[in-house]
Amino acid sequence: MERFRVTYRITGNEEEAYARAEDICLEQTVEFPLELVPAGLIRDHLVGKIAAFSPDGPGFYQAVIEYAASAAAGELTQLFNVIFGNISIKPGIRVQAVHLSESLLDGFKGPRFGREGLRRLVEVPRRPLLFSALKPMGLSSRQLADLAYLFALSGIDIIKDDHGLTNQVYAPFEERISLCAEAVDRANRETGQHSVYVANVTAPHDKIISRARFAKEHGSGGLLLAPGLAGFDAMRRVAEDDSIALPIFSHPAFLGSYVLDPASGISHYALFGQLTRLAGGDGTIYPNFGGRFSFSREECQSIVQGAAVPMGHLKPIFPCPGGGMSMENIPEMIEVYGREVVFLMGGGLFKHGPDLVENCRYFRSLVEGLA
Amino acid sequence: MERFRVTYRITGNEEEAYARAEDICLEQTVEFPLELVPAGLIRDHLVGKIAAFSPDGPGFYQAVIEYAASAAAGELTQLFNVIFGNISIKPGIRVQAVHLSESLLDGFKGPRFGREGLRRLVEVPRRPLLFSALKPMGLSSRQLADLAYLFALSGIDIIKDDHGLTNQVYAPFEERISLCAEAVDRANRETGQHSVYVANVTAPHDKIISRARFAKEHGSGGLLLAPGLAGFDAMRRVAEDDSIALPIFSHPAFLGSYVLDPASGISHYALFGQLTRLAGGDGTIYPNFGGRFSFSREECQSIVQGAAVPMGHLKPIFPCPGGGMSMENIPEMIEVYGREVVFLMGGGLFKHGPDLVENCRYFRSLVEGLA
Repeated sequence: MERFRVTYRITGNEEEAYARAEDICLEQTVEFPLELVPAGLIRDHLVGKIAAFSPDGPGFYQAVIEYAASAAAGELTQLFNVIFGNISIKPGIRVQAVHLSESLLDGFKGPRFGREGLRRLVEVPRRPLLFSALKPMGLSSRQLADLAYLFALSGIDIIKDDHGLTNQVYAPFEERISLCAEAVDRANRETGQHSVYVANVTAPHDKIISRARFAKEHGSGGLLLAPGLAGFDAMRRVAEDDSIALPIFSHPAFLGSYVLDPASGISHYALFGQLTRLAGGDGTIYPNFGGRFSFSREECQSIVQGAAVPMGHLKPIFPCPGGGMSMENIPEMIEVYGREVVFLMGGGLFKHGPDLVENCRYFRSLVEGLA
Repeated sequence: MERFRVTYRITGNEEEAYARAEDICLEQTVEFPLELVPAGLIRDHLVGKIAAFSPDGPGFYQAVIEYAASAAAGELTQLFNVIFGNISIKPGIRVQAVHLSESLLDGFKGPRFGREGLRRLVEVPRRPLLFSALKPMGLSSRQLADLAYLFALSGIDIIKDDHGLTNQVYAPFEERISLCAEAVDRANRETGQHSVYVANVTAPHDKIISRARFAKEHGSGGLLLAPGLAGFDAMRRVAEDDSIALPIFSHPAFLGSYVLDPASGISHYALFGQLTRLAGGDGTIYPNFGGRFSFSREECQSIVQGAAVPMGHLKPIFPCPGGGMSMENIPEMIEVYGREVVFLMGGGLFKHGPDLVENCRYFRSLVEGLA
């Protein structure tokens, strides 16, 4: 019977860590005392099994636990539950990586575009893509559209709503989407380029699909969604909808608590890489090292790995480091990330000099010169 | 203009903590360097304001930050984003409590039943309610229904699916719900009591509402939903649906990472109390102190407070401590929780003695004798 595996990092000495690994096998499946688990299928197949167990640096052990694929019922929500549901509440257990079986992966479409699809969409075959955000909240839809126009005119490939723009009275969703998409389209006609406007569809449960469809129908070239707020399965749902068929950028809002403590939660690799990709993100936004957040260079590099590690038919997706980037960071970022990256610069684009258009052009030329 | 407040606990000395509080004001709203924030409405109104700042024990400060209600756009997803979206990624910031304005609260229906409504439903006016779970995963729908029958026959008030039961081949959703609801109904006809079967509707985004409606139509008396897996707004959506109109029990799966580190994330009080209630949970399930999880007695007591603190029109909800409870815990739990509690005992009910019916009856008489 088909199985999949999850690698956990467990705190403790060998005996404690092994006991925790055994506990995970029960907690994540039958949630029942072992002595009461019925013999046969349930005990032999559904209870998790420790497939490997080894030291992982001082005070830590690594356990690979195997689960029956049938426990996940083909549902992303239930797969996440088996991976880390109840044990999220137990200290000293961190999901390091998932290893999903082919037919389990076949149940999820994953990213519709991936890196290649996104490059084709914006017609940028080689260099890193340039990404910025419409902000601050409180501007009118017209003002945001004017900004979108300037960004597109001056060479920014992807222009997204700030993730806090949803349906505020200052720039209501439908009005904002229509005006911003039109503005980017107008700039494209002038430049001959193919910038895209990315509408934020992080929204109440019953509004996500309708907003995504509205965005599609009104010229958005992509969507922004924060799975920490809307649920990872909402992203999966949007990604799989053929009537939408737009690239999705996953935003990390409300997800930080999973990664901050290195001894619990979920690794950067798994959360912002593997699981975001499994849920259909084409780009994974995360705070870059050296910005105003706390991720290390190594953690950022691990996200890049999770975004591209072989996972059956799932396409590799773009790392989108942002969060306090400035022009000064670009050379080092190109060293670290190479070409397969989307650079997200928000406030930094405004701060570089007094003229936004000049700043954007400088950003573009800097990247073109280096990559 | 209407505003709401959030209390954060911030790590650091006075200067560091104050700088972090100022940073929260920007990060959670305009996400823009202060010097670039346009004067007028945006700077005066949308940027968060530090309303209070004071020491909170060695190495910590407490900051109360005020936000414009309009920033939340009347959406639970965006309200959560303003409360803790980006700053979830910054270490040393913990949401302690939320203080929502009346008209902001008026935008959410909250729990449909609350404590009183749930008591009326099961016709138990005074004593603590008894709650158990159908498990383990791998049993057939028929076997789970037989268990549900025994639980109801022997005095358990609320009988829920284990939170890992979704739509596995072993007990597919529709079959399981129909058989289990019928079994509880049959037991009720024999006992004259009013036990309810609670169907797990934690499911893919596009299946939650249809499963909840199916459960309602086929005799479920309540629903189980894990907002960490499905999204808090999915719970809000189900709670507000008049065609469903069933009490909801919120399960903590996948939420543990928010509470484990006392210096970051969200407090037990806010997450399992206030926010679960705001999202429409009628009962909030969490691991009891002294069980197989790690919550302290004080943390559990804070959940009880968050479940009942005045929050406009929102009804008080039931704390549902579980997770490794046994008969031995009951006297202390009654001391701590009093009568306004739902005791969730799963494996412990099976372990107490060889006869499940006797065990359930003992559980009931123990609670009736003490409360």
